[in-house]
Amino acid sequence: MFPVPIHLDKNNANPMYMQLANQITQMIHQKQLVANTPLPSIRKLASHLGVNTVTIVSAYKQLETNGLVQAKKGSGYFIIEKAPKTSTHVLDIPMKQMTQQQIHLRANEINFASATPDPSIFPITAFKNYLNIVLDRDQGYAFGYHESNGYEPLRESLSHYMKRHHMINIAPEYIQIVSGAQQGIDIIGKVLLNAGDTIIVENPTYTGALAAFKSRGVLIKEVSLEQDGLNLEELEHLLQTHHPKLLYLMSKFQNPSTISYSEEKLRRIIKLAEQYDFYIVEDDSMAEICYDSSIAKPNFISLDTYHRVVYIKSFSKLMMPGLRIGFIAVPPQLSTLIMNAKHHTDISSSGLIQRTVDLYLREGDWDQHIEQMKAIYKRKYTLMLNGLNSLKKYGISFLEPNGGLHFWIKLPSYIQSKDFCKACQRQSLLIMPGSIFNASQDTSTEQYIRLSFAACSEEQIVQGISILEQILDSFNLPKKMTILPLI
Amino acid sequence: MFPVPIHLDKNNANPMYMQLANQITQMIHQKQLVANTPLPSIRKLASHLGVNTVTIVSAYKQLETNGLVQAKKGSGYFIIEKAPKTSTHVLDIPMKQMTQQQIHLRANEINFASATPDPSIFPITAFKNYLNIVLDRDQGYAFGYHESNGYEPLRESLSHYMKRHHMINIAPEYIQIVSGAQQGIDIIGKVLLNAGDTIIVENPTYTGALAAFKSRGVLIKEVSLEQDGLNLEELEHLLQTHHPKLLYLMSKFQNPSTISYSEEKLRRIIKLAEQYDFYIVEDDSMAEICYDSSIAKPNFISLDTYHRVVYIKSFSKLMMPGLRIGFIAVPPQLSTLIMNAKHHTDISSSGLIQRTVDLYLREGDWDQHIEQMKAIYKRKYTLMLNGLNSLKKYGISFLEPNGGLHFWIKLPSYIQSKDFCKACQRQSLLIMPGSIFNASQDTSTEQYIRLSFAACSEEQIVQGISILEQILDSFNLPKKMTILPLI
Repeated sequence: MFPVPIHLDKNNANPMYMQLANQITQMIHQKQLVANTPLPSIRKLASHLGVNTVTIVSAYKQLETNGLVQAKKGSGYFIIEKAPKTSTHVLDIPMKQMTQQQIHLRANEINFASATPDPSIFPITAFKNYLNIVLDRDQGYAFGYHESNGYEPLRESLSHYMKRHHMINIAPEYIQIVSGAQQGIDIIGKVLLNAGDTIIVENPTYTGALAAFKSRGVLIKEVSLEQDGLNLEELEHLLQTHHPKLLYLMSKFQNPSTISYSEEKLRRIIKLAEQYDFYIVEDDSMAEICYDSSIAKPNFISLDTYHRVVYIKSFSKLMMPGLRIGFIAVPPQLSTLIMNAKHHTDISSSGLIQRTVDLYLREGDWDQHIEQMKAIYKRKYTLMLNGLNSLKKYGISFLEPNGGLHFWIKLPSYIQSKDFCKACQRQSLLIMPGSIFNASQDTSTEQYIRLSFAACSEEQIVQGISILEQILDSFNLPKKMTILPLI
Repeated sequence: MFPVPIHLDKNNANPMYMQLANQITQMIHQKQLVANTPLPSIRKLASHLGVNTVTIVSAYKQLETNGLVQAKKGSGYFIIEKAPKTSTHVLDIPMKQMTQQQIHLRANEINFASATPDPSIFPITAFKNYLNIVLDRDQGYAFGYHESNGYEPLRESLSHYMKRHHMINIAPEYIQIVSGAQQGIDIIGKVLLNAGDTIIVENPTYTGALAAFKSRGVLIKEVSLEQDGLNLEELEHLLQTHHPKLLYLMSKFQNPSTISYSEEKLRRIIKLAEQYDFYIVEDDSMAEICYDSSIAKPNFISLDTYHRVVYIKSFSKLMMPGLRIGFIAVPPQLSTLIMNAKHHTDISSSGLIQRTVDLYLREGDWDQHIEQMKAIYKRKYTLMLNGLNSLKKYGISFLEPNGGLHFWIKLPSYIQSKDFCKACQRQSLLIMPGSIFNASQDTSTEQYIRLSFAACSEEQIVQGISILEQILDSFNLPKKMTILPLI
């Protein structure tokens, strides 16, 4: 059927359709399959390989998406004539439009840009087991409409979880289930913000949040970050001159700066919220991913005696981003408004997924999974930290975050991050230019890059560091050369 | 363990935990279990019945939610002392706040209020099979981040489906996957509407849409409905005096009025959209549920030569509401804006569910399922239609919708729908008062009620019609009695 026999392995972490697509891709790259060659018919190949036809359909579609084959009506798929089309690349997209979710990878690329975990570490087997238990147990009820504030047993499990892991008390009735942190931000914006209001954000910050807030027609003011949190002088000045409705921040291993708030700053900001009458929207996707528990700091919500904190929890980094499940811990006075806003946003989050996550939490697999994820992440973190430390001789600098999934690197002053990113891209290393995280048009982040290890294997981290070294060296060399003749 | 032995049947359409909860409820109602009796421990009962502990936990939680038992810390569950708390009822909630999703049922109630299909007819077995195929095939990739416009193969399957079933051509690149129609409305609002804009809606209409639009800070104007669609004179007058950004409507078996647009009105409204520069947002959840294909009419989108129609398709009534999957067919000029708005709303819809629905469509089960659902709905429709025809002698009137899941009944002038709903509720029959569907504060819908057969068995439809007859008769009787002495 093919010039090289296909080998599919059911136990491989890669799904079978990806294995098939990869093997055909290799034959195309190695010219074992040339332009205009027809691919075997779907039914024939499925029967030949002893797999379901959907596996073949999915593989062929994958190849079509990658621009390697095309479907001709009524005659099946053919190897394409023109050169394989390259996928969209980080630097081809206007900076502000790009988010980490929009990055597509070519083969052999190393991805320090994405902070999304590698799908091979997702707890699929356990999750599949619980999905099936839920389907057998609840039948059609798993697919009926669900309460807009969320499936009650799940709200209870999450309440227990927050108490057990973070010593944070949140009653189930003040938990609002949402389809991920991004939806949490969107819904809070709907409840708290009207056109013309002012909000305050950290600079740098997560631009996905900015987009959701901007959609409410608000004015966004930013405050710079210090090693222990927001610059309080700047903050107070803004509070006096503007009357912001909310302050959006990430208290732990902030994205992208990696800083965590000191307890003192947490307390002072909460007092300011009471004094100047605004809400603190605390976005927390990283609290669990802490590599040194001796330095653990509280969250805003755990110190909130004034009901000023709206806390958003995502499980995308800990469990699986595609689950689209997170929650908001809401102050009592906002709970009905937020539930109604959720209802008018998308009625409710998937009941099947809510019920399955509940069971997963309830049966204890969750605690075990977190430990596994932390162990995997810590190995990668240490590897990248050691690698980056060895590059300090080139003039880069960074904080040691001791948690989270990335580093925030300041480049030496003679390198522009834009040039640096382009050089990396030429070497198939994807990184995030700091300017992407700019809350405004200022240039304070242009000297920075963000490097994440979430999506990489340990081998790729080592390779990526080596590529970074070559590039730093190449920026260094001409400088040395121009300097030398002057001496 | 219990005064009456428990019988659980795995093959029963009711999930096992519901069977268990129902049997315990019966013992409580029949005083076989009295106040303060402890329920057996979860582990013991699970082992006794040979089921998973989660079945017991779920049953006990269900009883707790229904106010029949309470958990005492460390001592398990006990039968409650006070009278069972009644759940929230239709007429206890301010009319405007209530939506069909917020209705909770007591035992023995007949639900003509909800338009949500009975979970027992959901295609669980087939869906579970495809979920497992997807999990085995795609592994962790099913839970990674997905394209914001939707999983490509699903967009392709939906494109084929629209062509096959409705002769509507929508290219996959102009399909935007959303988490249900409500989210579709929310996202379109984000793209098209700013504070202060005007929109036009049908009166009566679906109030969930109004809530989403209101959240954008817009002015909402309404146009009354005739048997073949909007009153065009009223519409043109509004178009001349205001400059609406969009017109929101349901072209087929409108909710609640059941009217469908004539082809002539479709064409005239599209021309007006071009002339007055506004978008038509066509919400279509009912097109498939047509009981007389000879009267099939086109959709707005199938006649849209000006790219003026944004079409929202829900599968909640056809498949399962809890899936939270629908799509928007977007005019080319809006496609990027809508994709970005989806991204900023919740990144993407569940990849697992998208992949499973794709397979379900692709393997042909979908077509077969639609036929089954239509056959079930048609039997219920005919039963309710015959019943309602027999009640015409009491002065009620209605259109024969020939599709959809409900009837829109005009009560005789001497009955107020509010009084009528209260009388029904006293007899454990839930119905929707027409005033819930008011777009504004006017009173034109106060003479109406909406009766749906989606959530009822055929037996319940017969019972419900009989209750309606008693009530109509009771409103009638005193009138006759007061009339008689005067003769």
